[in-house]
Amino acid sequence: MKYQHILVAVELSKDSHVLIDRAVFLSELLDADVSLIHVDGTHGEIYPEMVDIRINPDQRPLHLETMEQLHEFANYAKCPVKHFIVGTGDLGDKLKGAIAEHGFDLIICGHHHDFWSKIVSSSRQLINTSSVDVLVVPLED
Amino acid sequence: MKYQHILVAVELSKDSHVLIDRAVFLSELLDADVSLIHVDGTHGEIYPEMVDIRINPDQRPLHLETMEQLHEFANYAKCPVKHFIVGTGDLGDKLKGAIAEHGFDLIICGHHHDFWSKIVSSSRQLINTSSVDVLVVPLED
Repeated sequence: MKYQHILVAVELSKDSHVLIDRAVFLSELLDADVSLIHVDGTHGEIYPEMVDIRINPDQRPLHLETMEQLHEFANYAKCPVKHFIVGTGDLGDKLKGAIAEHGFDLIICGHHHDFWSKIVSSSRQLINTSSVDVLVVPLED
Repeated sequence: MKYQHILVAVELSKDSHVLIDRAVFLSELLDADVSLIHVDGTHGEIYPEMVDIRINPDQRPLHLETMEQLHEFANYAKCPVKHFIVGTGDLGDKLKGAIAEHGFDLIICGHHHDFWSKIVSSSRQLINTSSVDVLVVPLED
């Protein structure tokens, strides 16, 4: 119940700052580690591996502009970012693997309240596949 | 971001103890208030009002066995329970009213990973209607 390793599922939007803020706040309160994950599902699974861009900062699993935005997120976090897992494919699938490997016990994700996101929201996907607690934060539409 | 009033959406199942445990833990950490809500949607909206059974403990908005279980949840919580809001109808609708009235800023609800609950899960309903953070806790199927 005392979360030890918080994982933030970031999207390519400034909205993700709100999610990172939540993680930093809780990590300070709980003395927990913080990691980030971004899975690009727009073109399916282009490659199966996930890349930890904290360990391999020079790897470029997604295109340059995307990588720059992801590195900006890591810099924005006012705490150390332990892992930043980046890949392609299905967020729910990739998350299962990441939880198994790193033992995350709290996932933070965003939720948009517009109609479209009610259909395809990643928060729903996360909740249906996650075996750990998920904190869903409402984001601006 | 520093939650001040946590609302736990309890179901009529021992699983709800897990949700109450989360709320008590976070309330101690954050010095936040804890309240509970139970909305019986099985027969639609039998009456529109919500009853606060902390303020009116002798009122019996649901049948006797249900009320006994709800009072047991309040006793189980190892912290003061500020409000215990009970009613009938749609959880999402009732929640909106409760948030407007009491200013809850974190909702804790459970999620079952079986197929049926993927279709009708109250966690999904809560997330789609809630304007505040929702902590979704996986429960045993």
